[in-house]
Amino acid sequence: MTKRLFQKIVVFGVGLIGGSFALALRKADAVGEVVGFGRSASNLRQALDLGIIDRIGQEVSEVADADLVLLATPVGQMAELMARIAPHIGIHTLVTDGGSTKSDVVRDAYAKLGDKVAQFVPAHPVAGAELSGAAAAGPDLYTGKKVILTPLPENSAHTVARAQAAWQACGAVIHKLTHAEHDALFAAVSHLPHLLSYALVHDIAQRANRDLLLSFAAGGFRDFTRIAASSPEMWRDICLANREALLRELKQYADELYVLYQALDKRDTAGLDEIFTTASELRAGWAEQ
Amino acid sequence: MTKRLFQKIVVFGVGLIGGSFALALRKADAVGEVVGFGRSASNLRQALDLGIIDRIGQEVSEVADADLVLLATPVGQMAELMARIAPHIGIHTLVTDGGSTKSDVVRDAYAKLGDKVAQFVPAHPVAGAELSGAAAAGPDLYTGKKVILTPLPENSAHTVARAQAAWQACGAVIHKLTHAEHDALFAAVSHLPHLLSYALVHDIAQRANRDLLLSFAAGGFRDFTRIAASSPEMWRDICLANREALLRELKQYADELYVLYQALDKRDTAGLDEIFTTASELRAGWAEQ
Repeated sequence: MTKRLFQKIVVFGVGLIGGSFALALRKADAVGEVVGFGRSASNLRQALDLGIIDRIGQEVSEVADADLVLLATPVGQMAELMARIAPHIGIHTLVTDGGSTKSDVVRDAYAKLGDKVAQFVPAHPVAGAELSGAAAAGPDLYTGKKVILTPLPENSAHTVARAQAAWQACGAVIHKLTHAEHDALFAAVSHLPHLLSYALVHDIAQRANRDLLLSFAAGGFRDFTRIAASSPEMWRDICLANREALLRELKQYADELYVLYQALDKRDTAGLDEIFTTASELRAGWAEQ
Repeated sequence: MTKRLFQKIVVFGVGLIGGSFALALRKADAVGEVVGFGRSASNLRQALDLGIIDRIGQEVSEVADADLVLLATPVGQMAELMARIAPHIGIHTLVTDGGSTKSDVVRDAYAKLGDKVAQFVPAHPVAGAELSGAAAAGPDLYTGKKVILTPLPENSAHTVARAQAAWQACGAVIHKLTHAEHDALFAAVSHLPHLLSYALVHDIAQRANRDLLLSFAAGGFRDFTRIAASSPEMWRDICLANREALLRELKQYADELYVLYQALDKRDTAGLDEIFTTASELRAGWAEQ
């Protein structure tokens, strides 16, 4: 019998990220038992019915004999969760997470995990959808997608290698950054676009003629606003967690809009041409990696 | 032999919009001969090779015996084009267009078409893509899509009905608005999102670490910026043509961003929740019609 990579894993938050992690490890035959925790009893029951988890966890002491613990809650809940599990983390237990921001999670880990912090390897799986909940989970969510690890100085090479192996077993491609590098990059290419998309839809939502407006919205609007259907709680937490970097990005974007406003106001054809052409060439030449 | 809807049509600008119009009418067996005009000889030759047009037009007097003329150039070129064809428009020739803005096209028509303005029924086919040129054209681009007619007081009911029949033969669903209503609606749900998407990509394009940023951009960025790959010339013209409405939209959006900035700066959790939840519910409940 081949030994599985992990005999027992515990997943906190069995939604899109946590559920897909469990399903991917199952598909790779890399896990024995999956225990799930979460705030919503109905979501946990659904995860059980869908075969995502084997058991609904009752006591957080379950983590003591777990080979791996995945923290897949919204990032705003990580600190409290870490404080709850810290006393129970076993000597061989690897902890990783699925949070979209890393500096805040690292700060929480230092504050709440005590000397168990060496067993925690922060991770950000760059895969998502506007869907959430166990029903949205699937075994192939991470296939070919990036997972960014932001290891801590306290992590041993062996611990980092185990975290890497776990995410690779899910089909992901591993990258490593510092948590500060990670958060600055994602403020620009992920968090800001989400904020801008929410802002447009909220702007329209407040208008008396919003139904008429939406009836004429087409493909451009559809794609631009797809991410505005994302989980409000998750994105509120991400924005607050990455607040400083995101405020900088918002300010820079407002400056960019001011330049565009001025160009349009002054009928500056050459100025508009430059902006649109530069953007169009860059975007047309970009391919998701 | 069944009589075709149009014996001869002339298309100015055989790109995505003009080429797809010709192909759709061919597929519906609604056209005899298609004559194409355009600025790019190589694009016209390609349109000929692809069977989109039967002939490359040489003299604009071709429009004299055309049943239908489609103006499918960028809107910035419409005035000059209208002035060129006006003296040649035949008594039975219907003229329509494919411009994404209508107030400017209507203004051009009154200025340049003289008493032939009664034969012109302005139209906006709400279908497009980030692709352009004859090679991007296809017979099904308009199938099930909206075409908005903004008829003029000078149009007879018969003339409007003919324009309607032409676009319906392409598979489109017809709506009617005034040109002012049209432009205000599309400033909000189409022109503004394009401008915002161009702005984000242009912002990133100017940074020293743009390649690193783009290497970590994923699905959210991809969808949000898809429209930033659109034709710069076409969108420059649209923005200038619908300048007043778009400036109003930009200003209102900047106000919305300021509210978001303040909420984030003050860690106003409830404020962020309200914005994200309102947007998310509206977007998740919206389906393209």
